[in-house]
Amino acid sequence: MEYHKLNQEDLTNLRSFISEPERFISQPIEHWDHDQFKTVRAMPDLVIQPVTNEEVEKVVKYANDHKIPLVPRGNSTGLMGANLTVEGGISLDMVKMNKLLEYDPDSLTMTVQAGMRLKDIEEYLADKPFTYMPAPAMHWATIGGNASTNAGGLKAIKYGVTREHIRELKVVLTDGKLYKFGSKAVKSSSGYSLRDLIVGSEGTLGVITEITVRLYPRPKKAINAIIPYPTLNDAIKSVPAILASGVVPTTVEFMGRKVINLWEKYAADTFPIKSGDGFIILGLDAFTDEELQEELKQALAAVKPFKAEKAVVLGVDDPEAKKIWACREALLLAIQKSTPKMDEVDVCVPINHIPVVLDRIEELEQEVGMRIPNFGHAGDGNLHIYLCSDQMGDEEYAQKSDQVINELYKTAKSLDGNMSGEHGIGYARADKFEDFYSKDYTELLRKVKALFDPNHILNPGKIFTLK
Amino acid sequence: MEYHKLNQEDLTNLRSFISEPERFISQPIEHWDHDQFKTVRAMPDLVIQPVTNEEVEKVVKYANDHKIPLVPRGNSTGLMGANLTVEGGISLDMVKMNKLLEYDPDSLTMTVQAGMRLKDIEEYLADKPFTYMPAPAMHWATIGGNASTNAGGLKAIKYGVTREHIRELKVVLTDGKLYKFGSKAVKSSSGYSLRDLIVGSEGTLGVITEITVRLYPRPKKAINAIIPYPTLNDAIKSVPAILASGVVPTTVEFMGRKVINLWEKYAADTFPIKSGDGFIILGLDAFTDEELQEELKQALAAVKPFKAEKAVVLGVDDPEAKKIWACREALLLAIQKSTPKMDEVDVCVPINHIPVVLDRIEELEQEVGMRIPNFGHAGDGNLHIYLCSDQMGDEEYAQKSDQVINELYKTAKSLDGNMSGEHGIGYARADKFEDFYSKDYTELLRKVKALFDPNHILNPGKIFTLK
Repeated sequence: MEYHKLNQEDLTNLRSFISEPERFISQPIEHWDHDQFKTVRAMPDLVIQPVTNEEVEKVVKYANDHKIPLVPRGNSTGLMGANLTVEGGISLDMVKMNKLLEYDPDSLTMTVQAGMRLKDIEEYLADKPFTYMPAPAMHWATIGGNASTNAGGLKAIKYGVTREHIRELKVVLTDGKLYKFGSKAVKSSSGYSLRDLIVGSEGTLGVITEITVRLYPRPKKAINAIIPYPTLNDAIKSVPAILASGVVPTTVEFMGRKVINLWEKYAADTFPIKSGDGFIILGLDAFTDEELQEELKQALAAVKPFKAEKAVVLGVDDPEAKKIWACREALLLAIQKSTPKMDEVDVCVPINHIPVVLDRIEELEQEVGMRIPNFGHAGDGNLHIYLCSDQMGDEEYAQKSDQVINELYKTAKSLDGNMSGEHGIGYARADKFEDFYSKDYTELLRKVKALFDPNHILNPGKIFTLK
Repeated sequence: MEYHKLNQEDLTNLRSFISEPERFISQPIEHWDHDQFKTVRAMPDLVIQPVTNEEVEKVVKYANDHKIPLVPRGNSTGLMGANLTVEGGISLDMVKMNKLLEYDPDSLTMTVQAGMRLKDIEEYLADKPFTYMPAPAMHWATIGGNASTNAGGLKAIKYGVTREHIRELKVVLTDGKLYKFGSKAVKSSSGYSLRDLIVGSEGTLGVITEITVRLYPRPKKAINAIIPYPTLNDAIKSVPAILASGVVPTTVEFMGRKVINLWEKYAADTFPIKSGDGFIILGLDAFTDEELQEELKQALAAVKPFKAEKAVVLGVDDPEAKKIWACREALLLAIQKSTPKMDEVDVCVPINHIPVVLDRIEELEQEVGMRIPNFGHAGDGNLHIYLCSDQMGDEEYAQKSDQVINELYKTAKSLDGNMSGEHGIGYARADKFEDFYSKDYTELLRKVKALFDPNHILNPGKIFTLK
């Protein structure tokens, strides 16, 4: 694809759309050339930080009319290089488009601009009787980024992923017009759900500017149980039994002593539970304590045959519980700190097949000679698998990590899994998409892309390759 | 659009794809020319009842290559003429493609052919610890039809609509190939969700042949409370208070004495509750009785300020509860029996705006001079509004019902609602779609349609008009 390179005239024209000079950054600094992982690097020619739909409309239309690549960007917590201007052009940085537009408890919705962070939404709702239920671990991600990757998080078993909590999107398409996809109403059987097509499309079909999310009554009671097992394998194998017991937990996470050790070093802190090599963190919520206790009893009975040791049961505000969650949520950063370079695979497989993936990881650690720490969402089959460079040279790491990634995708594909459960394909994995999902299927996605973005200006090079 | 009219050669060719003669019906009888409503009538030139993906693939490819309209059909419980061959051609009747393919409790999924009825799924699961959660009232509808309209049902507040319970679809596209959209895995951030594009597309983009649905642990305890109020208006106005109380009911239905009287006549039976003119049916489920009772207490406290009378609380297997649900589920048929002709509007509005729609209905009954009984899903804003012809002549009814439909859509649109919550647009409302959703938006859907079905052979004339 041939793109137009920004010139002085373009800068003058684009500048006229933006009311404040500090939101028009024609000499971008290092901040805008990477995401959380820093694996992909690309410096935009220009950064624009819009604050209104109108500004987005004008910039998108101009970029489309002049064939200038345009890459929407949230708070850059991604891992797959999805928000980088790999073809140059404009980085459309949404972080200043971060206003609450409407809190509407009577319709159980809340409408915000796409650049609002999860953290800010959580803080706004803290003293309200309603909450936004999805719980990605990266609280400083923007809600627009969450929508763009269909972020999953820690409560998907009971409450679903981001997709299920989005009622309405405002999206600027390449024609420069603002479209409304979905509505505040709960149900729709009124034509194709373009809302659901945009969710998860990683900024390649349109620019999301406003999001109406579903509010959910804040659960009255909640509890955590940390269950230690002799091995991680024992822990994982107990999960289907929990889910078959009739209990619907909010959360079933798994982690092993190996990654906990990394966290202890990273955080200079001590994990409160000494026994066990594998752990399940179980989250439950309910209206009454009786319900919680009965569900807990049932869940603990279900895991007993899997060598579960005595569970540590904690209220959600208990300092130990907070420490355990702080550990869980910082595992990525702890692993990242332990190695010069790192890459990630976050395949999602049917829940009963997690052990197959874990076995394959252990084999690969031996076969390839690489440290591959991991943890993840046992309740929904989504693993976070980290490929550590450690002492390897760049070339060796590149070759070995490519091999491991290919092998893990092969395994996930054979189990009817997905390439990514929540982190997206981005730029880093776009060249592996067609192999995973077939040529015919990818060809269909390419047609959808061409329909929404005939000039391929929106986040080019992401999800799948052009040919 | 110019279509090819089936000739003898086509019949011979198409016949060769189908292994049993009784599934190739070249002289269709009245059964295939209508749906539940009988408002739209159209006799297909040919009915084919496939039993395998391969048969569907061949028929679809042939129809596409020869520009023959092809209309997928479930068990014909629709109301909007969505499954009728309004342009002639082939009715692809899916009811014999009704096998269970896999019950897989370990991955919490079940895979069935698209022609399996909800009723059969329910019966199969009756003695299992898992259930398929969505609860459309039409139990004899096929699951393929449910997916095609994104059927809602009675439990959408707590458990969502059909969309949220579909993990994977097998779909034959117009190229005659079978595609897999989605997977058994719970989460995906791996490219555009074509699964969600197909759900709700009323057979206009592809033919759904297999569906993998989510299994949910069967709730241990459930209860119903029927709450009478002096008026239906009082009943409806209490609903936001229930939803704000922190209780998440499975079901909040509303109905008034007027429609109950029609059911009593239709069923030659007596509604068990004598007092009150408006009713809320509250459904709750939980793991323990304590939870149920506490939620019930809270919900009843919430409705008290709205003149709620003493609630009748019933176990789900109580004969009175069964009668009340039988009444609720037969209301459509009861209203249908009360009038020579009937039409329906099932707008869905933000839950707090139901009273606005009910007020408008009352005004319209007076303004237009038409009986407009209604009931619906108070918990999700989805109303079922029936336009009765009663003594009117055909012309008068056509004119007046068109007027009422337009007015109700105008009201729903002004409230950020949807044209249809669960019944679809079909043929009957396709000419009103663009007015409701705007020209630009409809134009976008037309492009999506053209991408999947360039020859417009799949269920032509449905959802929106071609131009």
